Amino acid sequence: MDIASAAPELDALAVVVLNAAQTEDVLFGNEGLVSRLVPGAVVLMCVTVAPDYARSAAERCASRGVHLLDAPISGGSLKAANGKLSIMASGTPEAFRKARPALDAMAETVFELGDSAGTGSAMKAVNQMLAGTHIAAMAEAITFAMTQGIDPASFMKVIPHCAGTSWMLENRAPHIVSGDYTAHSAVDIWPKDLGIVLDAARASKFAAPITAAALQQFLAASGMGLGREDDAAVAKVYARNAGLKLPGTDTQS
Amino acid sequence: MDIASAAPELDALAVVVLNAAQTEDVLFGNEGLVSRLVPGAVVLMCVTVAPDYARSAAERCASRGVHLLDAPISGGSLKAANGKLSIMASGTPEAFRKARPALDAMAETVFELGDSAGTGSAMKAVNQMLAGTHIAAMAEAITFAMTQGIDPASFMKVIPHCAGTSWMLENRAPHIVSGDYTAHSAVDIWPKDLGIVLDAARASKFAAPITAAALQQFLAASGMGLGREDDAAVAKVYARNAGLKLPGTDTQS
Repeated sequence: MDIASAAPELDALAVVVLNAAQTEDVLFGNEGLVSRLVPGAVVLMCVTVAPDYARSAAERCASRGVHLLDAPISGGSLKAANGKLSIMASGTPEAFRKARPALDAMAETVFELGDSAGTGSAMKAVNQMLAGTHIAAMAEAITFAMTQGIDPASFMKVIPHCAGTSWMLENRAPHIVSGDYTAHSAVDIWPKDLGIVLDAARASKFAAPITAAALQQFLAASGMGLGREDDAAVAKVYARNAGLKLPGTDTQS
Repeated sequence: MDIASAAPELDALAVVVLNAAQTEDVLFGNEGLVSRLVPGAVVLMCVTVAPDYARSAAERCASRGVHLLDAPISGGSLKAANGKLSIMASGTPEAFRKARPALDAMAETVFELGDSAGTGSAMKAVNQMLAGTHIAAMAEAITFAMTQGIDPASFMKVIPHCAGTSWMLENRAPHIVSGDYTAHSAVDIWPKDLGIVLDAARASKFAAPITAAALQQFLAASGMGLGREDDAAVAKVYARNAGLKLPGTDTQS
């Protein structure tokens, strides 16, 4: 039985797709599921989207009697498989109540961020702003270190124990040390997610120069053809510009 | 007895001053101590300076038979008082041997980074590059969050538990939440330290756009008259630009 046929029997539907365009198609397109759900069902929208989009989706669901929980997730594929996600959730008390069994199954941590859609997506945007910036800053620092005679392995022995560390540094810098760019999270995530951040910032007349600089580096990585590689490959932009040879790469890229 | 009179009796001298200019004066100025030390003594240079300066100081010490350990420290005043510093050290084996009792008394962790002065300072520069960038990125994110309806206290409840966190975020964001800008580490540290980083980067033809963007925000904070406030006050640059009222501040700054 396909999901469209099953929809009338669902109490809760979790949407985990790549972006707002896919979400729009799944929920409100020609074969959209919202029109097939029964009134009182809840949609858990687990996608990283703009806060304005989350509000719009919630309004359109409500007009059909369907609840929407704005519930972007964090944690990656391994945590998803193990029900250990973090979820940044906002929505009406009724949306939370209906979504609770699904939340309990999926998440280790649910941050309850208020009674209207949009705040969950806003918090996710804030997190992505920092996460993306920290990956690019790590890449900038590990390659700068090379210009100063410090190889990536030596960087990795020291910096994670010092005030300059970040969650992303500890998670991604090992990929550079080992020269393994198998994508756990791809470069092309960041033009999308930092784009969401900077669109929202621009709409609020908020100047975000550091995030903007980080985005440029991911765009350059994508332009180099690295969009499907692990996002630590943003270091290759710096290496190419500075004529450095990263571990495990054949050339000065 | 002043330190100049005591110098001939010292096995080891730790120099903990603000910058290279003060170090130069203390070690090599008119009343400079290196000329008063006995051959075989060691200078622990615990200042954040350019790697080139560390190499120059070591050479000039060596010409007088004095060892120099390039030994910048990390950890702040509380850890210093308790002998719990981290030290990023490089120098000759003899410099390390002579410095060992002093290192043991001062430090919880000593990273041994090679047999020549300069590498210790280079690693410190790399750490400061990340630390300063992460403080400014935190300030950018916590104020961006405010434009999206997320107050700093809510930011602090969520982000430290997510992939967007950093050591500096967890240490400095609480100052913004509480509105307490009593300087633990002042804004004006960062134009100095990120200046060291970007001077070294420029000399190596290394483009560091994210660090450069972070430096501009600290310069703007200093230009606003906040140089002596805690470095979390870089958030006030963002707040002023975006018309936001930070916790504990009287006006939109």
